[in-house]
Amino acid sequence: MIKVALLGCGTVGSGVIKLLADNKHVIARRAGHEVQVTKIMESDPEKVRALGLDDGIIAASIDEILNDDDCQIVIELIGGIEPAKTYIIEAMKKGKNVVTANKDLIASHGKELFEAAEENSVDFNFEASVGGGIPIIFPLKLSLAGNRIQEVIGILNGTTNYILTKMSGEKEPYEKVLQEAQQLGYAESDPTSDVEGYDAARKIAILASIAFNSRVSFEDVYVEGITRITPLDIKYGQELGFVIKLLAITKEEEDKIQVRVHPAFIPRTHPLAVVGGVYNAVFVRGDAVQDLMFYGRGAGQMPTASAVVGDIMEIVRDIEKNNTGRISCTCYLNKEIAAISKLKAKYYVRLLAKDRPGVLAGIAGVFGNHEVSLATVLQKDSNQGYAQLVLITDLVEESDLRSALKVLSEMDIVGAVENVIRLEGVSGHES
Amino acid sequence: MIKVALLGCGTVGSGVIKLLADNKHVIARRAGHEVQVTKIMESDPEKVRALGLDDGIIAASIDEILNDDDCQIVIELIGGIEPAKTYIIEAMKKGKNVVTANKDLIASHGKELFEAAEENSVDFNFEASVGGGIPIIFPLKLSLAGNRIQEVIGILNGTTNYILTKMSGEKEPYEKVLQEAQQLGYAESDPTSDVEGYDAARKIAILASIAFNSRVSFEDVYVEGITRITPLDIKYGQELGFVIKLLAITKEEEDKIQVRVHPAFIPRTHPLAVVGGVYNAVFVRGDAVQDLMFYGRGAGQMPTASAVVGDIMEIVRDIEKNNTGRISCTCYLNKEIAAISKLKAKYYVRLLAKDRPGVLAGIAGVFGNHEVSLATVLQKDSNQGYAQLVLITDLVEESDLRSALKVLSEMDIVGAVENVIRLEGVSGHES
Repeated sequence: MIKVALLGCGTVGSGVIKLLADNKHVIARRAGHEVQVTKIMESDPEKVRALGLDDGIIAASIDEILNDDDCQIVIELIGGIEPAKTYIIEAMKKGKNVVTANKDLIASHGKELFEAAEENSVDFNFEASVGGGIPIIFPLKLSLAGNRIQEVIGILNGTTNYILTKMSGEKEPYEKVLQEAQQLGYAESDPTSDVEGYDAARKIAILASIAFNSRVSFEDVYVEGITRITPLDIKYGQELGFVIKLLAITKEEEDKIQVRVHPAFIPRTHPLAVVGGVYNAVFVRGDAVQDLMFYGRGAGQMPTASAVVGDIMEIVRDIEKNNTGRISCTCYLNKEIAAISKLKAKYYVRLLAKDRPGVLAGIAGVFGNHEVSLATVLQKDSNQGYAQLVLITDLVEESDLRSALKVLSEMDIVGAVENVIRLEGVSGHES
Repeated sequence: MIKVALLGCGTVGSGVIKLLADNKHVIARRAGHEVQVTKIMESDPEKVRALGLDDGIIAASIDEILNDDDCQIVIELIGGIEPAKTYIIEAMKKGKNVVTANKDLIASHGKELFEAAEENSVDFNFEASVGGGIPIIFPLKLSLAGNRIQEVIGILNGTTNYILTKMSGEKEPYEKVLQEAQQLGYAESDPTSDVEGYDAARKIAILASIAFNSRVSFEDVYVEGITRITPLDIKYGQELGFVIKLLAITKEEEDKIQVRVHPAFIPRTHPLAVVGGVYNAVFVRGDAVQDLMFYGRGAGQMPTASAVVGDIMEIVRDIEKNNTGRISCTCYLNKEIAAISKLKAKYYVRLLAKDRPGVLAGIAGVFGNHEVSLATVLQKDSNQGYAQLVLITDLVEESDLRSALKVLSEMDIVGAVENVIRLEGVSGHES
């Protein structure tokens, strides 16, 4: 029997306890050994009692777990940076294998953690940190290892996907849909981490590190959230055949890694376009395998527990064969991060412009002066002397677009640059 | 350096050689060792020369490979049952690890192969046998191992998915679209194995064996092909919100395994509904993870090579750690296969019935007498005294439906039972 300690008995931790109990026999048979949680670190004993467990399972301190030589696996589900980081590293030093769902920690301190795992020849599994129950970490590390990965594009945050799906279907403004999502429990009372894209940024940092064998941290990710997306942008995008998604994107170009999270318009026919509501998906393109997509529930108690238990079972197999530390850190390169200003993409731009002759020529002239060529120009609803001008650019460099927009925003024929949204998954050699 | 022998240098074999060469450094770094193909068994030397390789690499006989103690991995890409089976088993007896894409062989003789692998403590990997480049075998065996799998539903044959997608979009009959597919190289000149569902049946037998830990063979699969699907059925289905797909389905119910391949109507909103053209996808539902879908290219030279090379690299890691035979046969149960007659599903039935008063009552009465209740009855196009009658049943047992249809087909008010298509992924406790 393999003994396991659980740090943190919240939603996911309780799910892990339940799953290990409900599928006890299946798990023992498939992993080769029974798995039993023998110690839980949790400040609220009610959470442990709610699972029908005796108080005796609650550890008095982290040391009780660290010093328990029978315990071979520690499951860290406390979240946040400290004390989770110290606990994980101390556990590894004691020869314990670790499973975590802690994206914040890996995205910011991955290097230290992987080094500690390698030094101590222990397994460090974190499938649950990205995409909840969706298997993506192991497939990227193993099944797809023969590929040079070209891009990974994820819908990695269920809250924002729910909000954008709702805004798209019901034409309601962001604030109203956010409130509904909060009432339904799909958004937190402080939604910042989700709606500003930080959660997705942590996840894409983790996937980028694996895809390109080079450590990418949260701080490396360019991030824009969804708070500035309006029903009007969604409507104009739909008229042009696009769907709006908060995408987490990483690509390798000229030996540099692009890594960014922002709202994007994708063609209605793109596999990611149909990923609705709280579902997550990860689109992967490799040089051999071409297009793949992994789709499923990116959060939730039992889907996340599924990933944690899969990770535990993989460790059990390694313990059985005396082979822990089998897949260690894969970041053996040190690639540069590409600046967002150098991005080459197509853009949707919405301007409020004076509704009178010659204005369009003036605006087009400014874009032309900045190397920004336009693929589509639509003059839409007009109001009080101003028209909504919707532009789709050709493939241009972001810094050129920004320069053009800066000049435009200071011209009196332009009321305002209302929104700029990148296009993704459209034809053209890039982006 | 790890030395590898290749049996069969056709399309996929050539792709493997190319991928190992193109991504040589990436593969060496990620797997821990360089991988080199040192011997190829191939009757047509031109195929080997076309890759820029010297004739010297061609093995004179299988024995030259079997007796080469330096060769640690054999890649079997000959296809078919014999001599592939004998070669694989002999290679395993010599302590060689094996990678194969041979679905026919695994679906019919899996037990022997896995036993030989286990006896000789070698790895036996076959990710490429199902879904081409899509990682599905390892995710099912590893990441999802904590789940009781409830169902696996695949679009596992690109040829038939291409044909049905085309028939749905362009309203053209089966024969015409098949011819086009043959001209484009998407269908073989003898398309039987694809269009009759045998190819998909082999693949779902493999997935069922893994999902339910019980050996399922090709012979266990109930199979219907797509040759009887007409544009009229597709049109009526579309009007009811359905999309037609050739589905490969396995579910566990009351300790028995359902395993079947047949055309099915799925709701337009089902994740599998958007899988078009030659793409494949596998939808998985587990008790913890809930809904997942894996999507990608189910065939083709480089996608399939991607899966083969991923399998090779996994073996290299096991060789490094002296740990081959790590994941052996997972079929430790012996479950019964459910008879198709016992299936409980909803059905689309198209009848040609006399277009006169009282006929509908007569037909409904026969269904009622056989415990078949109807959810929807639509009278469609009428012609020469007969009307197309489209019926959707509630959840009924297949044997009851068949009995009712037998009685109906002998009544003079019924011109013919034109088609019967199962519904899948619709609400209701099952199917």
